[in-house]
Amino acid sequence: MDLALDLARRGPAHGPNPQVGCVLLAAPSLTDPPAADPSAAGDLAGRVLAQGWHRGAGTPHAEAAALAAARVAGVDVRDATAVVTLEPCNHTGRTGPCAKALLDAGIARVVIAVADPNRVAAGGADVLRAAGVDVEVGVREAAGRELLRTWLAAVERERPFVTLKLATSLDGRIAARDGSSRWITSDVARQHAHDLRAQVDAIAVGTGTALTDDPTLTARNAAGELTGHQPLRVVVGDRELPATARLRGPGGELVHLRTHDVGKVLAELHRREVRHLLVEGGPTLAAAFLRAGVVDEIHAYVAPVLLGAGAAAVADLGIDSIGGALRFVARDPVPLGPDVLIVATPTPRTQKET
Amino acid sequence: MDLALDLARRGPAHGPNPQVGCVLLAAPSLTDPPAADPSAAGDLAGRVLAQGWHRGAGTPHAEAAALAAARVAGVDVRDATAVVTLEPCNHTGRTGPCAKALLDAGIARVVIAVADPNRVAAGGADVLRAAGVDVEVGVREAAGRELLRTWLAAVERERPFVTLKLATSLDGRIAARDGSSRWITSDVARQHAHDLRAQVDAIAVGTGTALTDDPTLTARNAAGELTGHQPLRVVVGDRELPATARLRGPGGELVHLRTHDVGKVLAELHRREVRHLLVEGGPTLAAAFLRAGVVDEIHAYVAPVLLGAGAAAVADLGIDSIGGALRFVARDPVPLGPDVLIVATPTPRTQKET
Ligand SMILES: NC(=O)c1ccc[n+]([C@@H]2O[C@H](COP(=O)([O-])OP(=O)(O)OC[C@H]3O[C@@H](n4cnc5c(N)ncnc54)[C@H](OP(=O)(O)O)[C@@H]3O)[C@@H](O)[C@H]2O)c1
Ligand SMILES: NC(=O)c1ccc[n+]([C@@H]2O[C@H](COP(=O)([O-])OP(=O)(O)OC[C@H]3O[C@@H](n4cnc5c(N)ncnc54)[C@H](OP(=O)(O)O)[C@@H]3O)[C@@H](O)[C@H]2O)c1
Repeated sequence: MDLALDLARRGPAHGPNPQVGCVLLAAPSLTDPPAADPSAAGDLAGRVLAQGWHRGAGTPHAEAAALAAARVAGVDVRDATAVVTLEPCNHTGRTGPCAKALLDAGIARVVIAVADPNRVAAGGADVLRAAGVDVEVGVREAAGRELLRTWLAAVERERPFVTLKLATSLDGRIAARDGSSRWITSDVARQHAHDLRAQVDAIAVGTGTALTDDPTLTARNAAGELTGHQPLRVVVGDRELPATARLRGPGGELVHLRTHDVGKVLAELHRREVRHLLVEGGPTLAAAFLRAGVVDEIHAYVAPVLLGAGAAAVADLGIDSIGGALRFVARDPVPLGPDVLIVATPTPRTQKET
Repeated sequence: MDLALDLARRGPAHGPNPQVGCVLLAAPSLTDPPAADPSAAGDLAGRVLAQGWHRGAGTPHAEAAALAAARVAGVDVRDATAVVTLEPCNHTGRTGPCAKALLDAGIARVVIAVADPNRVAAGGADVLRAAGVDVEVGVREAAGRELLRTWLAAVERERPFVTLKLATSLDGRIAARDGSSRWITSDVARQHAHDLRAQVDAIAVGTGTALTDDPTLTARNAAGELTGHQPLRVVVGDRELPATARLRGPGGELVHLRTHDVGKVLAELHRREVRHLLVEGGPTLAAAFLRAGVVDEIHAYVAPVLLGAGAAAVADLGIDSIGGALRFVARDPVPLGPDVLIVATPTPRTQKET
């Protein structure tokens, strides 16, 4: 399963489909020498016949890729075991159902890390079991869920996983008194933020930020060049963007959502198969997402800088007393040059059930 | 020298005097077996005859303590080497000069990590050299300076080393809209802050905090009991404290400085032999110290909490544009329960030469 998880990671983190890996193992045979340490090998010992992973929407699923690799290599996979990080789909979408492909290939046993929560695609395990295949679900499930964290959350809730990015001074400000904000954080922190952009499906800002900063909202490498995948660029709010806005230049598709309703924003992005949305501000849009209780994760780049005045990172949240504070749990402070990245996830009370 | 540094650490971190350790080594003799690896042992090989460290103001200095230990043990220290973390003093204060004590004992060689910057006490090395003792200064100097960091800074600048403590939400606030602030940070972070209180000589707050929060400003252990050493409690500002103020209760001496002049505060505390001052706020006093350019270190306890309104950690600093920002360098983010401690030191531009 660890090999399957490693294969899964080779696929893109962004996109509508999950990262999945598949390993085909030879059926245990009586002539095989016993494993040196059977307990360490678990019951997944066996020669690797073929492997595959999903390379993004429109390309074969991991199971199909592994079966194709076996075919190309002329390897017989009848009675083999398929080790797969996510339950094989039972759905004909851009590609055919994987459960059927495994059955057709004569696979005898399927070992799965994570069950598919997708209402449309789920049921693969049942189909396989009904056909007499030995199916086991939940092997290395925690690692599988960690890998698919954002995708699983998006599919389970039928809305994008929302990461809120903040880039603030130590006194919580995102700009000086005169509005200047370039730069509060260091280039190390900014490059880190670009790497995150390259992993998400969409970036959102409010019209305030779009009009004030004229940002490009592109993912760029250290040399300043656009990376291969460019997220959707989403602007939320009623005001029009000028024809000259840099958001209309090279980069991901521009989507202007003329609404203040966070629910409508998420529904439209879900319709567009956005699984991971990065909200980059400004303070008004950040507050709207927080008030809606839909922030799944905060990435706070904190620069050891003091300003003493200027706009705060988050606008009014309607909180009057300390008892109403939105509380998160910091995961792992990451030093980034002179700055610190604090990744935090909501405590159950802070996030609304959706 | 590492042993001497370890001994030094046994002494109290607070108090007017530095932490110093001293090891007396037997003179190398021709009958000694050669060290297994002479390069690793350096030229400080030799049997340990005695050791000592300074236990706080009014008690013997490390050298005197080591000589006394040798005397008690009946060990002959003539021609021995004294390894000491700080240059022996040449000054009769609460105790006699150590340079003379070493001479009187017949010490032949003195190895020192850090030269004494204290105008009053320095000169010990010269006295020893003039008397024919072999003196070497600067051995493991970096480690020695790190240990004496706050004390050296205080003595060199003739004012206390200033640590500014901030305890804020992720959006830089120290209280909610209605003024409530108990608690933003977790009990893990608060206990960490208490441990720091136990290491400093004085804690300062403005009258605003003293009157609003009615704090005790004591160092307490996890069980809530006062620790052995209690720092001076300093309140800065003109307003009177009520007779019932908890600051008048058990804890360190209360010093009310009726001034807004940070220079005067530091001069008075230097006169009282305060080497390490912890400024705990509020925002107005924090801003005054920052504007004066005398903050040597920031301890920012950042709680992953969002408030969206309420007082900011630091009042106006007179900074209009991002170019005027006070910039620090974060040392080591420390996870503290759900919170993060960011320790930061000023970049050269941020701190005024004093
Ligand atoms: N340092 C940083 O990391 C950072 C990041 C981002 C922004 N900023 C700064 O933030 C400032 C802009 O602040 P801002 O608060 O005006 O920006 P904003 O949050 O980007 O935009 C606010 C606008 O978004 C629209 N909007 C969308 N949803 C809304 C809702 N639910 N409720 C209310 N309004 C909604 C409204 O515009 P309509 O009237 O058009 O509907 C509103 O005026 C700029 O100075 C920028 O430099 C800094
Ligand atoms: N969360 C936290 O970590 C934390 C920590 C501390 C405080 N707080 C909160 O901070 C709030 C108090 O804020 P604050 O700003 O009033 O508190 P403050 O900074 O403690 O006190 C301000 C007062 O100090 C005096 N002062 C001393 N030096 C000054 C100078 N150089 N310039 C101007 N004034 C000077 C003035 O009083 P006079 O008129 O008497 O001279 C001034 O009004 C409270 O709500 C408290 O809960 C929170």
